[in-house]
Amino acid sequence: MEVLHMFGSKEQKRKWLEPLLRGEIRSCFCMTEPDVASSDATNMECTLHRDEDNYVINGKKWWSSGAGNPQCKVAIVMGRSSSQDVSSRHDQHSMILVPMDTSDDAIHGGHFEVHFENVRVPTSNIILGEGRGFEIAQGRLGPGRLHHCMRAVGLSELALELLCHRAATRHTFGKKLYQHEVVAHWIAECRLMIEQTRLLTLHAAHALDTAGSRAARKQIAMIKVAAARMACKVVDCAIQVYGGAGVSGDFPLAQMYAYVRTLRIADGPDEVHLSSIAHLELRDQLRKAQAKL
Amino acid sequence: MEVLHMFGSKEQKRKWLEPLLRGEIRSCFCMTEPDVASSDATNMECTLHRDEDNYVINGKKWWSSGAGNPQCKVAIVMGRSSSQDVSSRHDQHSMILVPMDTSDDAIHGGHFEVHFENVRVPTSNIILGEGRGFEIAQGRLGPGRLHHCMRAVGLSELALELLCHRAATRHTFGKKLYQHEVVAHWIAECRLMIEQTRLLTLHAAHALDTAGSRAARKQIAMIKVAAARMACKVVDCAIQVYGGAGVSGDFPLAQMYAYVRTLRIADGPDEVHLSSIAHLELRDQLRKAQAKL
Amino acid sequence: MEVLHMFGSKEQKRKWLEPLLRGEIRSCFCMTEPDVASSDATNMECTLHRDEDNYVINGKKWWSSGAGNPQCKVAIVMGRSSSQDVSSRHDQHSMILVPMDTSDDAIHGGHFEVHFENVRVPTSNIILGEGRGFEIAQGRLGPGRLHHCMRAVGLSELALELLCHRAATRHTFGKKLYQHEVVAHWIAECRLMIEQTRLLTLHAAHALDTAGSRAARKQIAMIKVAAARMACKVVDCAIQVYGGAGVSGDFPLAQMYAYVRTLRIADGPDEVHLSSIAHLELRDQLRKAQAKL
Amino acid sequence: MEVLHMFGSKEQKRKWLEPLLRGEIRSCFCMTEPDVASSDATNMECTLHRDEDNYVINGKKWWSSGAGNPQCKVAIVMGRSSSQDVSSRHDQHSMILVPMDTSDDAIHGGHFEVHFENVRVPTSNIILGEGRGFEIAQGRLGPGRLHHCMRAVGLSELALELLCHRAATRHTFGKKLYQHEVVAHWIAECRLMIEQTRLLTLHAAHALDTAGSRAARKQIAMIKVAAARMACKVVDCAIQVYGGAGVSGDFPLAQMYAYVRTLRIADGPDEVHLSSIAHLELRDQLRKAQAKL
Repeated sequence: MEVLHMFGSKEQKRKWLEPLLRGEIRSCFCMTEPDVASSDATNMECTLHRDEDNYVINGKKWWSSGAGNPQCKVAIVMGRSSSQDVSSRHDQHSMILVPMDTSDDAIHGGHFEVHFENVRVPTSNIILGEGRGFEIAQGRLGPGRLHHCMRAVGLSELALELLCHRAATRHTFGKKLYQHEVVAHWIAECRLMIEQTRLLTLHAAHALDTAGSRAARKQIAMIKVAAARMACKVVDCAIQVYGGAGVSGDFPLAQMYAYVRTLRIADGPDEVHLSSIAHLELRDQLRKAQAKL
Repeated sequence: MEVLHMFGSKEQKRKWLEPLLRGEIRSCFCMTEPDVASSDATNMECTLHRDEDNYVINGKKWWSSGAGNPQCKVAIVMGRSSSQDVSSRHDQHSMILVPMDTSDDAIHGGHFEVHFENVRVPTSNIILGEGRGFEIAQGRLGPGRLHHCMRAVGLSELALELLCHRAATRHTFGKKLYQHEVVAHWIAECRLMIEQTRLLTLHAAHALDTAGSRAARKQIAMIKVAAARMACKVVDCAIQVYGGAGVSGDFPLAQMYAYVRTLRIADGPDEVHLSSIAHLELRDQLRKAQAKL
Repeated sequence: MEVLHMFGSKEQKRKWLEPLLRGEIRSCFCMTEPDVASSDATNMECTLHRDEDNYVINGKKWWSSGAGNPQCKVAIVMGRSSSQDVSSRHDQHSMILVPMDTSDDAIHGGHFEVHFENVRVPTSNIILGEGRGFEIAQGRLGPGRLHHCMRAVGLSELALELLCHRAATRHTFGKKLYQHEVVAHWIAECRLMIEQTRLLTLHAAHALDTAGSRAARKQIAMIKVAAARMACKVVDCAIQVYGGAGVSGDFPLAQMYAYVRTLRIADGPDEVHLSSIAHLELRDQLRKAQAKL
Repeated sequence: MEVLHMFGSKEQKRKWLEPLLRGEIRSCFCMTEPDVASSDATNMECTLHRDEDNYVINGKKWWSSGAGNPQCKVAIVMGRSSSQDVSSRHDQHSMILVPMDTSDDAIHGGHFEVHFENVRVPTSNIILGEGRGFEIAQGRLGPGRLHHCMRAVGLSELALELLCHRAATRHTFGKKLYQHEVVAHWIAECRLMIEQTRLLTLHAAHALDTAGSRAARKQIAMIKVAAARMACKVVDCAIQVYGGAGVSGDFPLAQMYAYVRTLRIADGPDEVHLSSIAHLELRDQLRKAQAKL
């Protein structure tokens, strides 16, 4: 929805954004591909080929979350424009709207993999214009990443609540679990991590709202890394306090454990973001050093 | 099988151990309970009550691995003997053989939870004698824990092999994954952890074989903690290298991730073993200090 | 100074606080003792014995920072009042002003250890009243801890600046140090830790200013732990980037390394604060659970 | 001594090795340089220039341990041969014996920095031959690194002994320090790390003795990283248990803390060794994969 809101044409908004906002339909986002390391978007193999008034799309996408929902009526697909000059790494990608009844879905291994084979959509479905896919991605992924972080903070609060509840009610070796110093320190460490992450999330959101997606890149990359890592650690502690119950289906912790692990990969693996932070930090340090002269 | 081999009567061996060794039947071990923190075995609520020539068993067990196998014909059940003096924390537990067609199974939440309601078995099914359950547990759990560690080392070798294969074949940002220094260092850290754990496993196995279960307690507790932790870390690294594929069903890594997490809980959580190691270390340091005088 | 400002009598303020504020004299704080674990203040062995219009002080203190400064003219000494009822653990300590020319200093091992042997000071030197030492300590240590955290953040900024400078100017294996991905990720991790700690420091300071020392206890305990740990990690990274120079006297990093290590001990070791956080968190979780009912 | 023993000429052995073995003189090793990142030996700036029957040495070295000992009568200096073809990165370095009364020492900053300014020594002082410095370094550094590891294991044993002694004698909050679960778990973690490192040290030593320096490269790189890291962690735990005393001069822990930190830099920083391990592991995995075909 953010992509259409920020970059959609009047006609695209009328056709897709309005029913989305009314909750009548859902959308999905097709970016990640199974055959290449998608953390580097220049690896993308899905192609858009212009054929008169249509674009012909060919490629495989996976991890297209929500693609299997029967209400999902439109996909935003990112691909490489064959007509673009390949010498510029960041001007050859485009995003295009594909009505979902056009596509050839396949359920595979419990998650959605979408294969596009000579899918034709009218040229008016292109978003913002050919070759502007990176630009859109940058505008969209900032807020999207932050939403994941907010969810991670909320999930971690729940995990810590569950942890404390269990620690206050079970006994081992003559005392309640929370009276075991090691468990108590886990509670403290979890609270500490959650607080630090919550503050950084708010800080990044403030930067995004006031300075924009581009200026807030460093903050967003930082919170992307910190929130996923924190959530993994908090859920891990909660599981350990629950013991066998923690890895059972009786509590939500095992499911959380699987979910939070994906956060260190989704929207770009931690390592890509750490490299971005380093790059921006070195730039900032250089500016500071030059300002001193 | 180890329990019967080490502690079974002639008759028990004939009836159960021999068909087990011939592979005709399987067994399961019912120790952990859902309603209490079973890391402290004195919490156990399952009871054995003597009624003339029978024992009557009441209690709930879960995480009884293998109980659902149609070939599983016998369970070793640990419970608290009502006739034992409760003042001694370590003399009130017993282990008893329960033919599985006697029991009332229930599949619940994807794992086996077994409820015993007034289950009657002849007194001859008791292993070693009433009140000797802790003694048996100590004899059995040492080698059992070591088997888990060996499997963890093997699994980690496979995970590292998969990691290296992926790192050698995928590209991001102009180089192969293994040429990214951070990925290379993960490979090094994984190899380092596996080697240290392998050596400690061999050392503990040697101590167990030569000095016995009791003398090897510290070594076994150490490797129990080290192997589970190592396997979790190696699989985690492999997943990160695989990205979305690592958390998909296309590779065994996601399943490994769930499995190795249970190793930090199964056979006693890490924390119980760390406390044992500390206790034994302080004893050893005290002896060393006294020997100096 | 904070103690006198918050708890001193009119006369005490005139005599000591005013010259302190004018910068004419300095003070020191004598709390930690060499012979007992001072992280638990109830261990304190220094005594105050009332003898008519005087208090007689006996005890050993160490880590009395600033005691050796020739301008240091007054010490605030914490001790156990012999006249107090020992049954209450938190009402038996007092703080008293001791003019430094009364005391018997000794330089020992590079830091100041102060021995009080039958030191007599007038009863009017007692601060707030006998038995109120804990109350004062609680009021004083909150802001004091926060000052340490602020210094730790500043020091870490300098360490990261030094790190980036070195990483931008030295070469190994055909590239600049910062082009080594591992070094780049250290830069990112350091920036991330510093930002999270800076935000938590500001948050704790705001809580202290607006809600008071008592209400801000959890925030102050959290930042105490987080800041020390962060500074240790950042300085450690910087040293590794500097190599041999990092552990030499040519750069301030080796000295920083020694200093930041003390922060995990000074004003109470991390572990005491983690236990406090856990205690307060469990209280908060209980309140939340009760509010839901 | 190892260099002379392994690579020295008959005359060099007679002149230097024999008095070294008799304990009459000492030697030092001049490799690391202050102006370049010496973890990459190709950065070395010290030069050897052949002038008829002499070599003329120019360059600065630091961290030349033992250079200040009055008994130190000979230095082994590594430098770049001006007569060697610079196109081969690993054939341009040489090692040469420099009698110490020829050199111009200077004490600087508490450690030894040695400046060579047109130092002339006879060509017969070259070890093994010009351009063979790397070869000698590889032969020498393996055993040298292992000695450091052995010392690190011994030092850590002492630190753990001190830790246990303190934990058994000090009280806080109503119990002895070792009865605090967190402290107990530190004891366990330290023992676990020491055992894993000891076994890896013995394994590497065995590989070095039986398979030689070259074949044992991976094992030596692994133990180099593991031992330094382990020692840093064990000493850090011991300090925390000692509190203020741990960072005082009253116990050896503060000095150990500074020393063990240098182990992560000396003989090549951890990161260089991690890269080597990764390189060798990938080679081994490739061989294994090829063997399967």
